[in-house]
Amino acid sequence: MCVCWHVRELVRRKPGTRLVTQDEAARVAGVVVVAVGADHYNRLPLPLLTHKVVVDVANRTSPPHTNEESLAEKLQGLIPQAQVVKAFNVLSAYALENNVQQGAKQVPVASDWSGARRRVLEMVKRMGYSGVDRGQLKAAKEIEAIPLQLMPSWRVPLIVVGSLWFLHYLLLLFKYQVCEKISEGKDWEGYSLKHLALLNINRTCAITALWTLTLCYLPGVGAAYLQLAWGTKYRRFPTWLDKWLKMRKQLGLLMLWLASIHTCLGVAVWSGHYDPLVWDPPTFISAQVKVNTTSYVTMDVPVQNSKMSLQGELFLTFGTLSMFITCLLGVSSLPSVGATLSWREFMFIQSKLGWLALVTGTVHDGLLGWGFSSQDYTKCSLPSSAQYALWFPLVTIAMKLPLLLPCVDGPLQKIRGGHDRNKKKRSNVHPTDPVHSLDMTRRKREDRTVWQVRPMQTPHPIILA
Amino acid sequence: MCVCWHVRELVRRKPGTRLVTQDEAARVAGVVVVAVGADHYNRLPLPLLTHKVVVDVANRTSPPHTNEESLAEKLQGLIPQAQVVKAFNVLSAYALENNVQQGAKQVPVASDWSGARRRVLEMVKRMGYSGVDRGQLKAAKEIEAIPLQLMPSWRVPLIVVGSLWFLHYLLLLFKYQVCEKISEGKDWEGYSLKHLALLNINRTCAITALWTLTLCYLPGVGAAYLQLAWGTKYRRFPTWLDKWLKMRKQLGLLMLWLASIHTCLGVAVWSGHYDPLVWDPPTFISAQVKVNTTSYVTMDVPVQNSKMSLQGELFLTFGTLSMFITCLLGVSSLPSVGATLSWREFMFIQSKLGWLALVTGTVHDGLLGWGFSSQDYTKCSLPSSAQYALWFPLVTIAMKLPLLLPCVDGPLQKIRGGHDRNKKKRSNVHPTDPVHSLDMTRRKREDRTVWQVRPMQTPHPIILA
Amino acid sequence: MCVCWHVRELVRRKPGTRLVTQDEAARVAGVVVVAVGADHYNRLPLPLLTHKVVVDVANRTSPPHTNEESLAEKLQGLIPQAQVVKAFNVLSAYALENNVQQGAKQVPVASDWSGARRRVLEMVKRMGYSGVDRGQLKAAKEIEAIPLQLMPSWRVPLIVVGSLWFLHYLLLLFKYQVCEKISEGKDWEGYSLKHLALLNINRTCAITALWTLTLCYLPGVGAAYLQLAWGTKYRRFPTWLDKWLKMRKQLGLLMLWLASIHTCLGVAVWSGHYDPLVWDPPTFISAQVKVNTTSYVTMDVPVQNSKMSLQGELFLTFGTLSMFITCLLGVSSLPSVGATLSWREFMFIQSKLGWLALVTGTVHDGLLGWGFSSQDYTKCSLPSSAQYALWFPLVTIAMKLPLLLPCVDGPLQKIRGGHDRNKKKRSNVHPTDPVHSLDMTRRKREDRTVWQVRPMQTPHPIILA
Repeated sequence: MCVCWHVRELVRRKPGTRLVTQDEAARVAGVVVVAVGADHYNRLPLPLLTHKVVVDVANRTSPPHTNEESLAEKLQGLIPQAQVVKAFNVLSAYALENNVQQGAKQVPVASDWSGARRRVLEMVKRMGYSGVDRGQLKAAKEIEAIPLQLMPSWRVPLIVVGSLWFLHYLLLLFKYQVCEKISEGKDWEGYSLKHLALLNINRTCAITALWTLTLCYLPGVGAAYLQLAWGTKYRRFPTWLDKWLKMRKQLGLLMLWLASIHTCLGVAVWSGHYDPLVWDPPTFISAQVKVNTTSYVTMDVPVQNSKMSLQGELFLTFGTLSMFITCLLGVSSLPSVGATLSWREFMFIQSKLGWLALVTGTVHDGLLGWGFSSQDYTKCSLPSSAQYALWFPLVTIAMKLPLLLPCVDGPLQKIRGGHDRNKKKRSNVHPTDPVHSLDMTRRKREDRTVWQVRPMQTPHPIILA
Repeated sequence: MCVCWHVRELVRRKPGTRLVTQDEAARVAGVVVVAVGADHYNRLPLPLLTHKVVVDVANRTSPPHTNEESLAEKLQGLIPQAQVVKAFNVLSAYALENNVQQGAKQVPVASDWSGARRRVLEMVKRMGYSGVDRGQLKAAKEIEAIPLQLMPSWRVPLIVVGSLWFLHYLLLLFKYQVCEKISEGKDWEGYSLKHLALLNINRTCAITALWTLTLCYLPGVGAAYLQLAWGTKYRRFPTWLDKWLKMRKQLGLLMLWLASIHTCLGVAVWSGHYDPLVWDPPTFISAQVKVNTTSYVTMDVPVQNSKMSLQGELFLTFGTLSMFITCLLGVSSLPSVGATLSWREFMFIQSKLGWLALVTGTVHDGLLGWGFSSQDYTKCSLPSSAQYALWFPLVTIAMKLPLLLPCVDGPLQKIRGGHDRNKKKRSNVHPTDPVHSLDMTRRKREDRTVWQVRPMQTPHPIILA
Repeated sequence: MCVCWHVRELVRRKPGTRLVTQDEAARVAGVVVVAVGADHYNRLPLPLLTHKVVVDVANRTSPPHTNEESLAEKLQGLIPQAQVVKAFNVLSAYALENNVQQGAKQVPVASDWSGARRRVLEMVKRMGYSGVDRGQLKAAKEIEAIPLQLMPSWRVPLIVVGSLWFLHYLLLLFKYQVCEKISEGKDWEGYSLKHLALLNINRTCAITALWTLTLCYLPGVGAAYLQLAWGTKYRRFPTWLDKWLKMRKQLGLLMLWLASIHTCLGVAVWSGHYDPLVWDPPTFISAQVKVNTTSYVTMDVPVQNSKMSLQGELFLTFGTLSMFITCLLGVSSLPSVGATLSWREFMFIQSKLGWLALVTGTVHDGLLGWGFSSQDYTKCSLPSSAQYALWFPLVTIAMKLPLLLPCVDGPLQKIRGGHDRNKKKRSNVHPTDPVHSLDMTRRKREDRTVWQVRPMQTPHPIILA
């Protein structure tokens, strides 16, 4: 009854429509969209679907086994006389119902029948989406995998940053909990294991964020040195450097997330109690301390009524500046914002502002480590965390500095403009490695010669690069 | 003079254009766009517009009366021989001038004349927007209402969350201001009405945020139990559950806003003064307190030189984690980001990460309530706010747990895949309730069989579901 | 070898493609895309390109000299028999490779050959982008400038806000460092130059943010008064007001960034030490202060164990509210979010919520200035920063208030609806100044009569306004 109400409601809203049975509909239609799960293909009026264009929109709920055929191929096997087309499975019911995602959303289409494929591509276009011709029906396996993708480009960055985080957590545990006990013979309550719950996490997030930001900019520096050494941009980078250059966007966003957590925790505990080395010392008074309801003991008591030292003020300012420049990097990574930026604007933000964020973040850490260096804090042959965290970004900044000199940058720009120092007579076809195109530090769009090979159907454009 | 300058400027920029009077322009044109307000229709050269396609772009400044006709129908009444088309009113001058919003923006078109309607849809497409054919001119009333919409999908969520906020503010006022006075006979300065300005607001935002996040996930749990009870997904949910499922996105964004305010205020006041139960106790000293310029009184004075307890460190860590996971939910709700996510990725973020945010937020609150439970804080038969805030999320999490068991989740997934336990012979047409498509916890796109009835103009695709 | 592998890989992925030499490819193709830098045009097989459509995608790395011709015109000069078309240079390799930015991204096309131009526009459309016909090849100079744009609309706002920031930094330096020394004869360590590193920066960011937000709303008030004075909306605003109205979006985003920095720093230092005027006074005790390892001196010591006063609680609440309302303004400025908002929704957020942010921000500052006014803090004839920062937003709010009265707002709305008090017989053509369309306070899309002159190629639509 509620089904009938809903159906009548839909018919009422669409004048010119008729409510019919499945069989009758299948008989008159030229194109049939099959919107059932693959388990229910047998319930369809299969004999009525022969010689029709049958659009399969089914999705899997879990990835298929290696040799398993796609759902569309399974359907094609059931109705070999029909023209099965795989399409629309990437669209959500929510998107279709609310007309969102149009324009931006790509809808892949595959079929063994080129006429049917063209017809469905036309439907896709009229609905306002971008159709992508994926060729034969065997592409359906990849198309059905698209909705099941779980952030494939995030796997390696998450593993890298996660490992770095745990490494630093263990280092801090050793330095601040274990080491204190060993070297000063304190009890575990001495420095307190309780700090594993927050202070160690705060410092770990801070150091990991700084190192991850460094990991975003180091490969660009490495690539520049390689190009200078080779004297050409036409030589392929090692695969590991390729992949590293490609994952910089994900590394940057992970860095932003960790830096936000560190900012929140750091600001919450920011006080003379927790950061004594960048605050002016407390006032010590000799006072009668109440040890229980009746007795008092005279001892020196620190009274925190001081302010930050100059070092502390600079520390906080540089940290805040680094954080909010990183926020600008994050905002410019949003798809809709990135689309409004020109190449030079994107380069300015991701490269120049990005290096500024790295430098201010390093100064922020250095100001904390500076105080430590003037006192004897080296226990267990390990410097303070604020100090050992510095070497990686400092080395990267040091490697970058020579690249800023005009005598080095000049030749590098020429090489990126296509100059080949080796002057070897190369083949007329120069495919630049398109894997360099995802680049959080350098978006050099004009120096990427994109080489595409188009299907030889009709007189087609070719690209000379 | 300045008008003439501006006109001459426009003509100069567009070679091949001519500057003419309205009458002369109306005579030669085939399509005329009327861009005046409805109050000025009489100023148009109406006799010259007969037999032309007249596009009305006017907007209202306030919603019409119930039986009032649309502006386009009013214009059609003035020039019955013209082919009036309603279009373009949803585009802002800013968007047209700066060429933003293309692709994503939909432009509805309505007219009693199908040829004129097709012609204007073609114009819309050539301008780069998505034209939507809305049929007859009587649809113009709905089209004219579009720019006047004021967040219709936010009305009920704002009322719900607003009411919840005031309810909790009054509860806190009772618990912490009124109750103290009643039970301990303190003056109003005792606990201080001043805390109504911030501390009460901070706690209210915190509790309301936690309950609102619970409201995002509870309906999904309820829907799952209903489907298990009914044994099928083809039975329509109660209307209130439908609406609740649809408003989860708005509830989530309101929760994010309240949680941000709570985070900001909470971090600002985070100290031993304000959160004594999760900080180590202060040092009490017996001291000479200066009561005026000359006299001193000996009394016990608390000196805050302690750190957070383990409970306090965990409390802050879980709270920060919950906050920044919620930020991820918020970022993935942005249209441009959502468009890049696959179904499984969106599910992972909104469902799995969302439940993680709820659980960490509940633990955050529980750690504060834990301390209270070990002391006698029950005044006026009302436990502390940190405790009474816990029951709602705890009940929801408890309801969710059975759904995670394989013996329960298995049948549920089968039902969502289309399995019908009742095995009744249903009609061949199974419209699934499309209102389930907006789902912040479950985006099961493959189990939504979308049933569309298309106008019977030409051989059209039909959908078997 | 690695080049060959890469080429073979590309051929393998695109069935139906062939690997050929440049010369052979150039011979058979109808359209040739030249994807080398302009320095390498001579390396192309130029004789083979005659009578072909040659698409130039080259970009410059730096802006050209004033009289320098565009790269496309240079190429046309090399192959005068070819039909050179400038296109695609605005697309990044990353976007092409990853199929992002489609729909939203505009691709300008220019050529002296209209047939070739149409053909390339068709290619652009089939690739899913929005083609923009820019006419003759001399437009290539502007097209080549697009990727080199470096935020042209941000120049003046950055200069304005930057100058304001430095002005306030110097004022604060005078008030809090120099003035103290002059008037109280303190040493530089008295108030401490160290505060230049953070406290002065925090206050400067706060005051500059408040004044910048005021700068966003003042021009709208000014424009309203001008329209009321003139009695019409058809008179052009002064150029400086035009430009000011256009830059309000950039001013608003700069304000959001400065306000975020102020919030972060302000919350970090929020304590009785730093903001004594909005905290209850500390407890002064007479104590034995340890001045070195052996000796003690009796002095009065402040012990910070107090809480915020009512003034302090209100101050923090209003500040947080203002901050998070401004965040809503920022989020609604995102392109993808703005595209989903109707005119009335956008108006509500940018105008009503915006004024609410300004008012709450002014109250926030006023609460801090209030405390100062009850004590004698006027040194060097300059009131406290919290007070002198107030005058600008207060004046703007005072100017806004009369506009809210029905007897003023009524006529203003009529004028914006097209009413002309002067009743002069105006020409039939009324171009409204389209520069008012970017308006962060008032998006009155229905009262902008847009007047466009379209090229007189075929029977074209004309607009009566």
